[in-house]
Amino acid sequence: MDKRLRRETGQTLGPTLRVLDHAVETIDQTRLPFEEIWLILRGADACRQAIVSMQVRGAPLIGAVGAFGMAFALREDGSDAALAHAAAQFAAARPTAVNLAWAVARVRDRVSPLAPLARAEAAWLEAVAIADEDVRINRAIGLHGAGLLREVWRRARRGISQAPLRLLTHCNAGSLATVAHGTALAPIYRLHDEGVPLEVWVDETRPRNQGASLTAWELARHGVPCTVVVDNAGGELMRQGLVDAVIVGCDRVTRNGDVANKIGTYLKALAAHDNGVPFYVACPTPTLDLALESGAAIPIEQRSAREVTHATGVDAEGRIVEVRLVPEGVAAANPAFDVTPARLVTALVTELGTCPATEAGILELMAVSRQSRGVLA
Amino acid sequence: MDKRLRRETGQTLGPTLRVLDHAVETIDQTRLPFEEIWLILRGADACRQAIVSMQVRGAPLIGAVGAFGMAFALREDGSDAALAHAAAQFAAARPTAVNLAWAVARVRDRVSPLAPLARAEAAWLEAVAIADEDVRINRAIGLHGAGLLREVWRRARRGISQAPLRLLTHCNAGSLATVAHGTALAPIYRLHDEGVPLEVWVDETRPRNQGASLTAWELARHGVPCTVVVDNAGGELMRQGLVDAVIVGCDRVTRNGDVANKIGTYLKALAAHDNGVPFYVACPTPTLDLALESGAAIPIEQRSAREVTHATGVDAEGRIVEVRLVPEGVAAANPAFDVTPARLVTALVTELGTCPATEAGILELMAVSRQSRGVLA
Repeated sequence: MDKRLRRETGQTLGPTLRVLDHAVETIDQTRLPFEEIWLILRGADACRQAIVSMQVRGAPLIGAVGAFGMAFALREDGSDAALAHAAAQFAAARPTAVNLAWAVARVRDRVSPLAPLARAEAAWLEAVAIADEDVRINRAIGLHGAGLLREVWRRARRGISQAPLRLLTHCNAGSLATVAHGTALAPIYRLHDEGVPLEVWVDETRPRNQGASLTAWELARHGVPCTVVVDNAGGELMRQGLVDAVIVGCDRVTRNGDVANKIGTYLKALAAHDNGVPFYVACPTPTLDLALESGAAIPIEQRSAREVTHATGVDAEGRIVEVRLVPEGVAAANPAFDVTPARLVTALVTELGTCPATEAGILELMAVSRQSRGVLA
Repeated sequence: MDKRLRRETGQTLGPTLRVLDHAVETIDQTRLPFEEIWLILRGADACRQAIVSMQVRGAPLIGAVGAFGMAFALREDGSDAALAHAAAQFAAARPTAVNLAWAVARVRDRVSPLAPLARAEAAWLEAVAIADEDVRINRAIGLHGAGLLREVWRRARRGISQAPLRLLTHCNAGSLATVAHGTALAPIYRLHDEGVPLEVWVDETRPRNQGASLTAWELARHGVPCTVVVDNAGGELMRQGLVDAVIVGCDRVTRNGDVANKIGTYLKALAAHDNGVPFYVACPTPTLDLALESGAAIPIEQRSAREVTHATGVDAEGRIVEVRLVPEGVAAANPAFDVTPARLVTALVTELGTCPATEAGILELMAVSRQSRGVLA
């Protein structure tokens, strides 16, 4: 057995995911930033429920948790029927992000040639491998993204050597969205650790407020200066010249470079384009969906209207309270993602390097990577 | 004395403003949609405080309340010094909307040639005239805007005669923002009353949620079908072809057609432009600021960070509760308005008619209007 994949029970895969003997442990993200509560997910149903309820969220993290969920399901029943059922159940838990479907298919393909009794253990090791890979991928995205952003910083300083690099990000593509480091936030953490002065505008990201509650929380913990703004503000900040670059994550990138990401991303990409501000998308290659021609084919998840009509926060006495914002009886709609056309994306930042958001750019990057892996092998 | 301006005490100027003998009465908009509480504003300080706290808001309505505030101030002291002081105080209460400064200057210019003791009564009548004019202006905007939108509806139906006209609006430019009818909502009410089937997407409008709390409240009261969405959603709705036109109000329009309006308007204008959706701005001519060359010169009001970090709603027991959304110690910024460049505006809808958002378009409209008034006189 591959030594690299062997882990002691209770080991930390990353700051957001720990592995116990018969469970995985992760932060309940619906309670942040008000309470830091660790969930112990025992079994497939618990994993699936945590994904559906968004107690775990972020495309890479739900991929990893989905993979562990497959392993749990196979511990109960390793048959072909159980394997197919588990794969279908997990792939359907969230429709827009491709990582979940990708991770589930990867586990399924890895274990389906094996005898039913051998499948659970192999699935578990594959899930650990997926989690480990996510950490390595994000570290590489941090490296490549920091290179791009250092260049932006150099141009933006205009002679003031310690003028901060001013970035804007939407939603949470940070440590909490992944096993470690994050995708869009990985370059930010890297630059901060290198001593580059930063100021990060954090979009609140209604309706679930992942920016205000998760990104602000993790940036502040890491000591990165950040300021929360409402989602409406980014365009005006760019018009006033207060944003040097935008960097966001993604839930799925199609063959032509179109980007599905949290609702509102498209509006920020339009504003960046209109103001000559570079717009970068941090994109682990498992998030690429080369089978889809363009963003028009991406299913957009419609979530509960209650996420729009209600908000959760802390009252004056420190109690977590959900309040209704909208008059009773008024309808609400909640498309959870949008599609940013490739023409608005300055570059994709992947673990293999950066590339233009075009079919040619993506395919060339992957071909070069295959080649260099071939040379190394 | 002009008979038209004579009013009995306690008379309603419009659904949002009533005149008492020594007071004006208006809805406390910070309590909507949860409670309908009428404020009795006695005296200049009360008027000014209601404007600053946004208990009254909406460019036309704060113009009218500011004018009554001037009259109250002159009742206490009609001297030149008091007049100058009151005008400066009211003009500074909210910096972005031009109507307030316009209404205050109009009252000042009307009364300054008069003897100090005659000023209060003349100011009161001028305030009533401003309120009456607002009602007439909005009715005319409703007429001209309905004409434009009926044309959009005709094109959008594609053979289904009763397919609804799908509109998107941002913030509240409705009855609550004016003395009556609203500006952006005036054409919507008119079309609805004429029997045109409508569906209105209402932007939540963070941070103060004027869309979710005020626009949804007044549209629902009027029976206009509406659906609240987060501010992030509009771009994706347009991409999916679910919006036939956008119509918004404005706080100030400069000589070249640039539009200052509630923060987030610019992002919707970009999305409309990117998707070929017409973007209309309802603009009473008192909101035109021909002295300003372009939007670059408009002061953008920065409001309290608390509007971003906190939200107010109703808890499960029906209590109005303010909750904190952002982790303690994290900064927030709150630019309250943005500037939409004229190139993104399909047309301005004024009480004189519609025109392109260009200097030539605006000046021609006003010249034609002056001419026709000349002919009628």
